[in-house]
Amino acid sequence: MSFAPFDWIDDEARRRAGAGLVRSLRPRPAETGPLDLASNDYLGLTRHPRVTEAAAEAARRWGAGSTGSRLVTGSTALHAELESELARFCGFEAALVFSSGYAANLAALTALTGPGALIVSDAGNHASIVDGCRLSRAGTAVVPHADPDAVRKALDGHPGRALAVTDSVFSVDGDAAPLTALAGACRETGAALLVDDAHGLGVLGEGGRGALAAAGLAGADDVVATVTLSKSLGSQGGAVLGPARVIDHLVNTARTFIFDTGLAPAAAGAALAGLRLLRDEPHRADRARAVAAELYERLTRAGLTAVRPDAAVVSVRAPSAHQAVTWAADCRAAGLAVGCFRPPSVPDGVSRLRLTARADLTARQITTAVATVVDTAPRAAG
Amino acid sequence: MSFAPFDWIDDEARRRAGAGLVRSLRPRPAETGPLDLASNDYLGLTRHPRVTEAAAEAARRWGAGSTGSRLVTGSTALHAELESELARFCGFEAALVFSSGYAANLAALTALTGPGALIVSDAGNHASIVDGCRLSRAGTAVVPHADPDAVRKALDGHPGRALAVTDSVFSVDGDAAPLTALAGACRETGAALLVDDAHGLGVLGEGGRGALAAAGLAGADDVVATVTLSKSLGSQGGAVLGPARVIDHLVNTARTFIFDTGLAPAAAGAALAGLRLLRDEPHRADRARAVAAELYERLTRAGLTAVRPDAAVVSVRAPSAHQAVTWAADCRAAGLAVGCFRPPSVPDGVSRLRLTARADLTARQITTAVATVVDTAPRAAG
Ligand SMILES: Cc1ncc(COP(=O)(O)O)c(C=O)c1O
Ligand SMILES: Cc1ncc(COP(=O)(O)O)c(C=O)c1O
Repeated sequence: MSFAPFDWIDDEARRRAGAGLVRSLRPRPAETGPLDLASNDYLGLTRHPRVTEAAAEAARRWGAGSTGSRLVTGSTALHAELESELARFCGFEAALVFSSGYAANLAALTALTGPGALIVSDAGNHASIVDGCRLSRAGTAVVPHADPDAVRKALDGHPGRALAVTDSVFSVDGDAAPLTALAGACRETGAALLVDDAHGLGVLGEGGRGALAAAGLAGADDVVATVTLSKSLGSQGGAVLGPARVIDHLVNTARTFIFDTGLAPAAAGAALAGLRLLRDEPHRADRARAVAAELYERLTRAGLTAVRPDAAVVSVRAPSAHQAVTWAADCRAAGLAVGCFRPPSVPDGVSRLRLTARADLTARQITTAVATVVDTAPRAAG
Repeated sequence: MSFAPFDWIDDEARRRAGAGLVRSLRPRPAETGPLDLASNDYLGLTRHPRVTEAAAEAARRWGAGSTGSRLVTGSTALHAELESELARFCGFEAALVFSSGYAANLAALTALTGPGALIVSDAGNHASIVDGCRLSRAGTAVVPHADPDAVRKALDGHPGRALAVTDSVFSVDGDAAPLTALAGACRETGAALLVDDAHGLGVLGEGGRGALAAAGLAGADDVVATVTLSKSLGSQGGAVLGPARVIDHLVNTARTFIFDTGLAPAAAGAALAGLRLLRDEPHRADRARAVAAELYERLTRAGLTAVRPDAAVVSVRAPSAHQAVTWAADCRAAGLAVGCFRPPSVPDGVSRLRLTARADLTARQITTAVATVVDTAPRAAG
């Protein structure tokens, strides 16, 4: 036989091009750049001198890498400090830091379920949750978005381990999950609740303590949270928060913990500095929510269709994938970076712009951003 | 119903304790510490001032986090520079950087296969490869360790896409895969070859260009490599290397790329500095291999059973999991850190010490390390 094993890739590339769904990388320069309403730097901490200096200092003090698995040489006192402060801040007994939020979700889902277990997962959950469900080899029931009754029904009567999982704030539309009702459904049926608070930490709850604290669920013995250090905290990495026995179980069994190099010291140090900054300046969380509300009000008043934001993400509908791309490109040409979500990144097939309401946006920047989005809107976007 | 959903965790913890398989974290201090033969810092770069300063400088210049998916705001010019220098150094057309080597393996395996495809995987492959196989939903045939004939037989006659995957250097035993024969088996059957060069980059090949360069396979149109930035390069992160069309395909389809925050600038900067250092000081690669050979010679001469090292990992057999733990603890008490692998981290159930031959170990440190391992050896370890 003799054919090139990757020829099929060209066919797929042609199909994508035909459908207007080609993605490509656009590396950004360091210094200048458009007004940023596309990043997940919700609190404006990633370039804060306290945070970047903490990263620099950690690299110098501990080295550029953690040098091994957390179970071998990859755990430093800095990791331990971050874990204990993060757990305390969010109201959980213990925390475990991973190299990414993605890895944290894979760990929690695989280590807390397994063959014979049942996972009930919201249809709008993040890709890392979906992958965690697949990896776990548990049975997975995907239920309609934000529907606690459907969750209860799916859990009801399952004989073995069961767990319901949801984003706290959905990454594409920015709407919040009905956590109280979900916790009720879990408790009625004896299931555990796993909440991915990637977009809640730093934004929701008193002083940004997150969606679980806001719902009075932080620290409960049947609740586990995952967070990322890469959004509000301005760094990289992820964590699982929960009862000490759950964290201990992950240390012993979670493959993306045991077989992955520990988070780099610079990232751990930056996340810790971000966390302390948030503790010192709790108004940053309020401000992110206020900016989101203002963006939403002004965009919908101008006739655009948006989802009322529960956190710092404002989602604006686009009529089609092609038009979403053009819209985002027109914004960029006018000096504004916005996110553009289209298939296959959107579970419902609806393309949209995604704006992030950074806490450090000025009144003038908000005005500019709104004007740009409105002025570049395609005809049919109303 | 009313029971605590995590009670089963206590039962598992008790079972682990009974089997002597409890793992716990031992955060290390920054300054002092034992002689390190446990980390994967093969070239001694993680604390090199050029590497740590590059991390610090990148955090200051670009921010502590990349702020988003590589497809939104997470690609900086620094990421692009790292990708192009890494590809060139290793002899591939293109490269794509991920937040970890784990994520790079998940990406390559899922994006290059899929339902209906066949993956043929070595029984000794790393956990991240195993997880990639599971996530891919391809059919997976696990073949005996380092057995190209078994690979050929498993691939033979498969009608759709097929790919063989192997570690270049197996992480536990430090033995090398028969890459030339594996490539032959793939080419005879029209399959692609994916090689995880996590432990080869920086150690094997001319100047540390890796196992694929050493085998004359780098840059071939049917070969893809994954690497990690967290071992020889002293940082954090991972990469996929391959033909440009494969990299482009990953940008468009790999979930752990699209839905993960980009690697932190500090880690990208440190890896780039590590790569340039290796380019400037190619003898580091030779030195790591020479240290490994010397450790092996001296340990076996003293009567211990070890695997002849093909790279920088030296694996020494322990009689049991309990004795491996005691042995490693005794080494540590004597001031030497060594890795201890035991079930479930070892595919064959055999526990061992794992020593890493860092290029920057001095003659005296090598002598000390050998004496410590030999002096603390359990009776039955010969
Ligand atoms: C809801 C959600 N969970 C998890 C993740 C993954 O976190 P990370 O990017 O830190 O891997 C993200 C975003 O990237 C996310 O939006
Ligand atoms: C063979 C192999 N592949 C992949 C990985 C994962 O790389 P990383 O730790 O950078 O995620 C490791 C080690 O951690 C490894 O040993």
